[in-house]
Amino acid sequence: MASRVRRIYSHVHDGVDLVVFANSTDPHVDMSFMYATGLTDGLFEGCAAFCHPDGRAEVVTSALEEEAAKKSGLSLHRFFTRAEREKAYKALLKGHRKIGLNFAEITHKAAEELRKFAPRARFVDVSQAVMKTRLVKEAEEIALLRKAARVASQAFEDTVDRIRPGRRESDVAADLVYAMQRRGASGASFRTIVGSGPNSAEPHYTAGPRKIRKGDLIVIDFGARCDLYCSDVTRTVVVGKPSPKQRRMYETVRRAQAESLKQMRPAVRAKAVDTVAREIIDRTEFKGRFIHGLGHSVGLAVHDGGALNQASDLVLRKNMVFTNEPGVYVPGFGGVRIEDDVLITADGPQLLSTASRDLIEV
Amino acid sequence: MASRVRRIYSHVHDGVDLVVFANSTDPHVDMSFMYATGLTDGLFEGCAAFCHPDGRAEVVTSALEEEAAKKSGLSLHRFFTRAEREKAYKALLKGHRKIGLNFAEITHKAAEELRKFAPRARFVDVSQAVMKTRLVKEAEEIALLRKAARVASQAFEDTVDRIRPGRRESDVAADLVYAMQRRGASGASFRTIVGSGPNSAEPHYTAGPRKIRKGDLIVIDFGARCDLYCSDVTRTVVVGKPSPKQRRMYETVRRAQAESLKQMRPAVRAKAVDTVAREIIDRTEFKGRFIHGLGHSVGLAVHDGGALNQASDLVLRKNMVFTNEPGVYVPGFGGVRIEDDVLITADGPQLLSTASRDLIEV
Repeated sequence: MASRVRRIYSHVHDGVDLVVFANSTDPHVDMSFMYATGLTDGLFEGCAAFCHPDGRAEVVTSALEEEAAKKSGLSLHRFFTRAEREKAYKALLKGHRKIGLNFAEITHKAAEELRKFAPRARFVDVSQAVMKTRLVKEAEEIALLRKAARVASQAFEDTVDRIRPGRRESDVAADLVYAMQRRGASGASFRTIVGSGPNSAEPHYTAGPRKIRKGDLIVIDFGARCDLYCSDVTRTVVVGKPSPKQRRMYETVRRAQAESLKQMRPAVRAKAVDTVAREIIDRTEFKGRFIHGLGHSVGLAVHDGGALNQASDLVLRKNMVFTNEPGVYVPGFGGVRIEDDVLITADGPQLLSTASRDLIEV
Repeated sequence: MASRVRRIYSHVHDGVDLVVFANSTDPHVDMSFMYATGLTDGLFEGCAAFCHPDGRAEVVTSALEEEAAKKSGLSLHRFFTRAEREKAYKALLKGHRKIGLNFAEITHKAAEELRKFAPRARFVDVSQAVMKTRLVKEAEEIALLRKAARVASQAFEDTVDRIRPGRRESDVAADLVYAMQRRGASGASFRTIVGSGPNSAEPHYTAGPRKIRKGDLIVIDFGARCDLYCSDVTRTVVVGKPSPKQRRMYETVRRAQAESLKQMRPAVRAKAVDTVAREIIDRTEFKGRFIHGLGHSVGLAVHDGGALNQASDLVLRKNMVFTNEPGVYVPGFGGVRIEDDVLITADGPQLLSTASRDLIEV
């Protein structure tokens, strides 16, 4: 993955002569480690990748991960003990004067340890360079993101008919994850959300024992992980015929998504895409009830760095992949969210997730 | 959860007057945030808990998580924008001179941000205090860990009969996760490992398209998450009759587990428990093939801080919960691992995971 390392360096303009991705204990691992090394298996806790300006990467790996690490074809430094690990780190840091770290994904403890191992070096933040690099996907990455979105979409279609009054939120989540794994996902890319009735008003609810009832809105937010790449899709269904208010909520969100989607083209500002959706919602009775950003980049992580929101200074580029996920949430009543994964192409937006966006009555 | 916060302070002996748990983007969130606040739902990206020596905690939460946060009954500071968030952080940091952070689980970027918000304060590492507190489980936590271990064990028993030649590793993983979710897990507590044949020699393999064959050893490492608490269990099965070497591997690992288990009592050194298992394995033909530590604490995180290994200076105490998971790995041939979750009681070890530890022929 020398080209990835070189691309990271192309965004660094201040004489950094080494970039280190250092993992702590799971879940505090930096997916940039996998990105820069091309590794697709293993956990690599306490391991690190030392990346050079010419694109070379060297991996310090525990014996535990050695078999997985060998697949990378990279230069390996294996350790059994902490002392061996410290020795390998020090040897690889030696002579480097300006070392880049991904401040956004390294723990404070791991950063302090590296400082101690190389007391004369200056450590600088390269998280923006890493994010910029990871934001623009390669063909191989797009294929995996497409697969992850397709698997999630198909799994939803496989299982939506089984949603009915009396079943628990957790049953719906179990069906969905199983269908994703049967269709080739290594697992869910995050904790599946099945929020029914009042729970649908809580954007980051998960799935509990509540039994589904007639009249519920159900927000179902789910994703597949395929060869480490993630999808992130949301569909909202209604149990029985929607009430007029439920229908208005759904149509508002759907319109916000459709209109903002049209803006997802190269050279458009991320903030402007969010604004389109937000203004549509804020012109309705649901003003102020769209309480999160419109979307986020998706890749090796579900929340992969860049954002479509009012605080973002990002400009969209070809081969970026973002969610587009407007929602409205009325506490005590319920919520609606529609979320798709969108590839930016020269010709405009391309939807990677395919499940129907019509309001489904179950 | 004032008692938890006070327990954390009881391990801090240097005049810290505020402890802050600050989350970044998922997965870089600190489960100590959930621990200290008692929250069980929501993601709380970019949110933080400000914990005082008297046990009080105040939560700065995005609007997105407000409904979930209200369940805590804690004092809430809601923000919509970055500017509002910064203002809330600064107000809560103000006047504090020595602030504790969990260096092991906060990102370097988040720690640097807090430093900038409180330039006159000294920031110190309280990760050891946090770990010590989280290591000793409360009755309520033990009940959830017991449930998570039971759910995983039962799910294995539900599905082991479906393992047969021709099925893919990924099918076995899908069955297992589904069974865990049907039995009440919110999901898998980590990426399920189903390593068959040569893949079983890779301790952190996941599960791929390989079809199971007669003669394979299959290492199956899985866990359930129940109300945020994790289990972590491994069983190794053999497809057909085991070869003499496979049987010797299995019996070696089983003996290492059984003997080291007996040592899991209050006041025993964690290192000594690892030594017992290691010496048993190293006296056999599999010398040097036990390439990881014997176990780790399990709780809100799968790898929850403390370790049973040669580098550990931990002493076991009542109400700690550890995995005991010896293994031997022969590259190209296969591996065996047996892993259980073990509660330390005054009377000795209590197994939380219940699935049979006999070598199962499928």
